[in-house]
Amino acid sequence: MFETLFTPGLDTASAAPLNEQLQAMLRGAILDGRLPSGRRLPATRALAERLEVSRNTVLAAYDHLIAEGYLETRQGAGTYVSTDLPDTSLQVRAVEQAPVTGLHARPLKRPLAGMPALDQFPIDIWSRLSGSVWRSATESQLLYNDPAGYLPLRQAIATYLSAARGVVADADQVIITSGIQQGFHLLSGGVIAPERAIVLEDPGYPGMAAAAATLPHPLHFTPIDRDGALIPDIGGPVGIFVTCPSRQYPLGHTMPLRRRLEVLEWAKAQDCYVLEDDYDSEFRYAGRPINSLQGIDGGKRVIYSGSFSKTLFLALRLGYLVVPKDMVPNLLRQRMATDSFPSISNQMLLARFIEEGHFARHIRRLRAVHKKRLAAFLGAAATYLNPWFEIPASDTGLHIVGFCRDGAELPDDKRLAIIVGRAGIGASPLSGTYSQCTPRQGLLFGFANIPEREIESRVKELAAILNQQTGF
Amino acid sequence: MFETLFTPGLDTASAAPLNEQLQAMLRGAILDGRLPSGRRLPATRALAERLEVSRNTVLAAYDHLIAEGYLETRQGAGTYVSTDLPDTSLQVRAVEQAPVTGLHARPLKRPLAGMPALDQFPIDIWSRLSGSVWRSATESQLLYNDPAGYLPLRQAIATYLSAARGVVADADQVIITSGIQQGFHLLSGGVIAPERAIVLEDPGYPGMAAAAATLPHPLHFTPIDRDGALIPDIGGPVGIFVTCPSRQYPLGHTMPLRRRLEVLEWAKAQDCYVLEDDYDSEFRYAGRPINSLQGIDGGKRVIYSGSFSKTLFLALRLGYLVVPKDMVPNLLRQRMATDSFPSISNQMLLARFIEEGHFARHIRRLRAVHKKRLAAFLGAAATYLNPWFEIPASDTGLHIVGFCRDGAELPDDKRLAIIVGRAGIGASPLSGTYSQCTPRQGLLFGFANIPEREIESRVKELAAILNQQTGF
Repeated sequence: MFETLFTPGLDTASAAPLNEQLQAMLRGAILDGRLPSGRRLPATRALAERLEVSRNTVLAAYDHLIAEGYLETRQGAGTYVSTDLPDTSLQVRAVEQAPVTGLHARPLKRPLAGMPALDQFPIDIWSRLSGSVWRSATESQLLYNDPAGYLPLRQAIATYLSAARGVVADADQVIITSGIQQGFHLLSGGVIAPERAIVLEDPGYPGMAAAAATLPHPLHFTPIDRDGALIPDIGGPVGIFVTCPSRQYPLGHTMPLRRRLEVLEWAKAQDCYVLEDDYDSEFRYAGRPINSLQGIDGGKRVIYSGSFSKTLFLALRLGYLVVPKDMVPNLLRQRMATDSFPSISNQMLLARFIEEGHFARHIRRLRAVHKKRLAAFLGAAATYLNPWFEIPASDTGLHIVGFCRDGAELPDDKRLAIIVGRAGIGASPLSGTYSQCTPRQGLLFGFANIPEREIESRVKELAAILNQQTGF
Repeated sequence: MFETLFTPGLDTASAAPLNEQLQAMLRGAILDGRLPSGRRLPATRALAERLEVSRNTVLAAYDHLIAEGYLETRQGAGTYVSTDLPDTSLQVRAVEQAPVTGLHARPLKRPLAGMPALDQFPIDIWSRLSGSVWRSATESQLLYNDPAGYLPLRQAIATYLSAARGVVADADQVIITSGIQQGFHLLSGGVIAPERAIVLEDPGYPGMAAAAATLPHPLHFTPIDRDGALIPDIGGPVGIFVTCPSRQYPLGHTMPLRRRLEVLEWAKAQDCYVLEDDYDSEFRYAGRPINSLQGIDGGKRVIYSGSFSKTLFLALRLGYLVVPKDMVPNLLRQRMATDSFPSISNQMLLARFIEEGHFARHIRRLRAVHKKRLAAFLGAAATYLNPWFEIPASDTGLHIVGFCRDGAELPDDKRLAIIVGRAGIGASPLSGTYSQCTPRQGLLFGFANIPEREIESRVKELAAILNQQTGF
């Protein structure tokens, strides 16, 4: 079977790296059942020879698929298609992995606890482009625009998401929003029957819970374990389940492939939608991000949501939904009734910023800067904050979670967040992210917007403040 | 009684023109009942002497109040407080007319049939300011912002509205929106009980009808006569009545004072809100605009809505609500749940544009240009379009209405609008603005965005096209 699987082989003329082409090929074969669960894969050396690529290429592809949960190794016995994938789910869909081109960055995130390194934002380029797009604006750009958003921006986003996140989408499936809350309202009014429930993760992004509370649908929550959201278990029909599989907010868990497939299977059985809130996937400081749930599903019932609030800046208020094609007309009707179309200014500017490569450069710079800041913060926290907080290892995002230790005699985390602010460290209370589950006390520490050289002294100062308060 | 009425007299040190101070004084006295209906006013010469101002000042004030319907003249017998004001309504509220300062322009309008003279838009200034506001942006401006909008912009709008529209408002009553549809959604979710009805004018702005159709409230319509909207007469409680008293859309009627007071009295009896859609009041080419309904009411149950879509350009997507103070918290809660806060970019730019006086200059320029284009269009229409259209006189706005003549054998106005477009004239079908009332056939001709020298030739070309189609 490997003969047909690896024919026609890899495309050395493509801009997509060979190891990513191989990943896509294998992932597709696993998902559509051509490579069944438990099947042993060729040895890396043998496959490298057959494909006429270096062995490192094959190793890199295997390693990545192991990290994603598609493959597993058995001690001394080679590499296999994972056995703990639910068999019936494997038919979900062949991923048509788009070739990787151009951008090497990825977007998205939202409010609360965690700003990017704003000192790295290229305000000079942004200002210059801002004047420039206005000077070249045409009369038609100043008038009615597409309710889905500015086409060049939607094209830039589709290209980027396909390359960076394995999202399967054309520009006509991209709808520009002011952020996930507007996107959520459009979905509610446009395609979710009011009697069908909304299910959110608990803990989760408080903005989503606040948005859901204003909608007519019944509202339910599903708890989190170390693999992310549990499969929702509620009475009555579900309309949409909102989840952050790439990096659970706020706890940071990545949902492994098995759970992802379970979510898709459940959603199929419920005949409901899944809203994948991929708010943060740019900021993975080790390894390559795991592909989107939308890409596994092929965009049939998974709606993908992203924003530029975290990669650029919060006050930009630009995000997007990627939706199934048949959903577009209803959503645009809802958009026209509620908001006509998004303002052209930021869209022209952002499209140019992406097209000219500034966005990709900015993300690369941020990732390098954040990685250092994260290491410095984790180091300083281990040295100074251990009496009060348990801080799990983390290699992603813009915040780290510190759980308040039992017996540390800390004030309530809402008050604590204010105290931490006095040391020049942005923090949000963990308890504020819970809705129905019993809240845990803790803090989300924003590490990314503190200059590296100041991190240790601020953490030390925080320890001194806590010392005074608690006597440790 | 005139002794106390005109004490302490006019303030010659004020920036407000003396005739406007006198208007405000008289208007306030009429509204709070100190000057009762039917009371004769002092002769202009006598009053001028008493107030130590020129007789022209008094004449100008009387003329304006006559135009507004507060005063009336009786042949050869002087000037009186109008007798057809409903007496019980006169207690509505003393208008605290704010002193007129700075800006002499006024904002606002929305989609469909009628663009301003976009060739007059100072894109050079706008581009330059755009780069400049970004260069001077602070980190905090790039982060969270006020859900009500950028404070300097809200201040600029409050100052402007007070001066130009007699709107009674502080900056903290101004909520920046993406336009009236978003404002309408915020009101619906934030302060209008779902079982209470929405009442719209019929015909009216189709965008409002579309927005209302997505909301849970019962939807009703009230017809138009030559004084604008009729007092709604529906069974069941009303939540909000949306009206355009300054210039009915699309028919262009100005609601006289008597009807305004009736609307306020009705709203009080219903305990409902009135949404005053003041979309177009900048563009009055003869006389001074009539003050807002909100100003008469004092902003207790009238919510004022405006936008910059018509004074600047549509794709800017910036509008605002002016709301009663006690409504602000609920609306901001709704805003935070649906849209967080408006993008900072356009707000910074627009605030600067207003503060530096560019907005006022632009409106003055537009008014002069539009006035000439309107005269040219009306002239050409009278010469060439008379066989097909009855075109009432008009001295406001960005479009004129042409009613299709019976027997003119014109195609349906939806098709007709497309035909007119071929002659380079923007047009919308009148029938598309009707919801429940029997639609009239006609067109809204956009005259303001056609260079004056081209108007006659385009109208002539249109006549040639219609001639071919209909044989006139």
